[in-house]
Amino acid sequence: PATQLSVESQRDGIVVVFYQNQFAMYDGSLLHDPDQAMYFGDVEHRLPLGLVDGRPCQLIYLSDSLDTPGLSWHGLRTLVGQVDDQLFRLLGVAQQLNAWYQSHRFCGCCGDPMQPREEERAMECVRCQRREYPKLAPCIIVLITRGREVLLARSPHFPPGFFSTLAGFIEPGESVEECLHREVKEEVNLEVCNLEYLGSQSWPFPNSLMLGFHAEYAGGEIIPQEGEIEEAYWCSIDDLPKIPPRGTISRWLIDCYLARQAGVDQ
Amino acid sequence: PATQLSVESQRDGIVVVFYQNQFAMYDGSLLHDPDQAMYFGDVEHRLPLGLVDGRPCQLIYLSDSLDTPGLSWHGLRTLVGQVDDQLFRLLGVAQQLNAWYQSHRFCGCCGDPMQPREEERAMECVRCQRREYPKLAPCIIVLITRGREVLLARSPHFPPGFFSTLAGFIEPGESVEECLHREVKEEVNLEVCNLEYLGSQSWPFPNSLMLGFHAEYAGGEIIPQEGEIEEAYWCSIDDLPKIPPRGTISRWLIDCYLARQAGVDQ
Ligand SMILES: NC(=O)c1ccc[n+]([C@@H]2O[C@H](COP(=O)([O-])OP(=O)(O)OC[C@H]3O[C@@H](n4cnc5c(N)ncnc54)[C@H](O)[C@@H]3O)[C@@H](O)[C@H]2O)c1
Ligand SMILES: NC(=O)c1ccc[n+]([C@@H]2O[C@H](COP(=O)([O-])OP(=O)(O)OC[C@H]3O[C@@H](n4cnc5c(N)ncnc54)[C@H](O)[C@@H]3O)[C@@H](O)[C@H]2O)c1
Repeated sequence: PATQLSVESQRDGIVVVFYQNQFAMYDGSLLHDPDQAMYFGDVEHRLPLGLVDGRPCQLIYLSDSLDTPGLSWHGLRTLVGQVDDQLFRLLGVAQQLNAWYQSHRFCGCCGDPMQPREEERAMECVRCQRREYPKLAPCIIVLITRGREVLLARSPHFPPGFFSTLAGFIEPGESVEECLHREVKEEVNLEVCNLEYLGSQSWPFPNSLMLGFHAEYAGGEIIPQEGEIEEAYWCSIDDLPKIPPRGTISRWLIDCYLARQAGVDQ
Repeated sequence: PATQLSVESQRDGIVVVFYQNQFAMYDGSLLHDPDQAMYFGDVEHRLPLGLVDGRPCQLIYLSDSLDTPGLSWHGLRTLVGQVDDQLFRLLGVAQQLNAWYQSHRFCGCCGDPMQPREEERAMECVRCQRREYPKLAPCIIVLITRGREVLLARSPHFPPGFFSTLAGFIEPGESVEECLHREVKEEVNLEVCNLEYLGSQSWPFPNSLMLGFHAEYAGGEIIPQEGEIEEAYWCSIDDLPKIPPRGTISRWLIDCYLARQAGVDQ
């Protein structure tokens, strides 16, 4: 059952503290006692997040922050691969639910205020009763392979020298597989075949559900999509550029392929 | 590139006509000439849907309907398996985009009006510039197998004697696989292993993206979840009850398993 949004402060619980899109770290920890958090700033709202090690956990969202010695602030992006999976997941859920809560104050149908429902994680319009659930954006992410080469690409906003796999949002009406073929065609002008689903990842930037595939090259010449892809090329697996860090599904798709090719070599 | 929402009437195009959650059929067809549609009722708004056989297609949403002889109205549910895949997809997209458009008249952050963007399929707030893209709800759907038996279940709102596979919405923070294990545990109290992704389906009731799996029984006794599952049982593949029609991914997951077992038998 989804967590209730309306729960008030819980003395026996634990909190994460969020302000201007950053999490509070104090005494080396991103998890705090509710009493401690009083010294971080003024509370704007609280959201229940579920249980952490059996203790109820809340997000505390601040309207301003105090100048507390030993307190530092950290964006979620900078914590990728730096904190354990369970904590990263908790912070990701916290950030997503907070954004969802703040963007559902008013009903999209009639413009009246919305309120959290008691029974489930949903916002409901006080006037027209419309319900909204937390939103996820399903995305394909694919490593295209051609023997000992893989297709890597960079978008204009990547740091210099950095490359990744192709990714894109699924649109209404299409299956995951149709989206994959469309995105590959749009972004690099290639055809692929032998799609293999390897696994998925929740990715809270801002609310993606990544569906990870390998696909084999089937035809076409690379033409990078203007505005979206700055450069794309066939890269030897023995000579990889800077790629995403461990903890990303992009990296995992690459590592899986390397492991398989190493198996093939033996 | 996503279709523009602001395009006006296109004389050389084709339209689908929607009123009170039903599509207009005239002269045996669900696709109409723009001139014809004048006789169906008064237009409230139009939404571009993309190209159909190279012709631009629009949704026309009526504020009321005229009493035109030969005109009949059809809910999308009643058309499952009754029209070809391409038309079903078009109508599904039409219904989803219309619901999305109607539920994004106002900004959830500030309550001010939103407007369609020119460059992409998104609504934007005239005041705070917040953008919203069409929403999909990713769901797992799974056929649990145990040799020549499969797990089928019915929800309280199914027609009598009708059974289906298990399905459920993915929540923020979880991977597809984590969702599958959670839903199976919640809905029938079982453990499963050897998850195999078979494929996906866009399902416009109201905006699901179905991710279809087979999974093998690994342990536990069936306990149906109160309120959600009225009955669940191990069913021999030689004695199936009423199951979903062709055209649903639920049926396809069952048919795939039957075909495999037939292969095993040979
Ligand atoms: N975890 C990983 O390894 C990994 C790697 C690459 C990309 N990703 C994620 O995949 C997603 C897609 O990647 P990208 O590079 O195509 O994205 P992007 O963020 O560059 O977005 C591309 C464009 O799509 C549009 N858009 C934004 N949100 C949308 C939505 N919900 N639905 C439809 N269109 C939308 C916008 O016009 C945007 O400019 C991003 O969320 C990104 O964080 C994850
Ligand atoms: N194509 C197929 O073969 C097939 C078969 C079975 C189910 N489905 C689809 O799978 C989906 C899930 O099935 P179900 O029986 O669990 O659903 P359901 O429609 O019975 O919903 C269950 C509950 O989940 C909550 N909910 C609704 N929308 C949500 C969302 N976007 N996110 C989180 N929670 C939400 C509501 O409290 C709802 O009562 C439905 O959209 C259904 O149409 C498709």
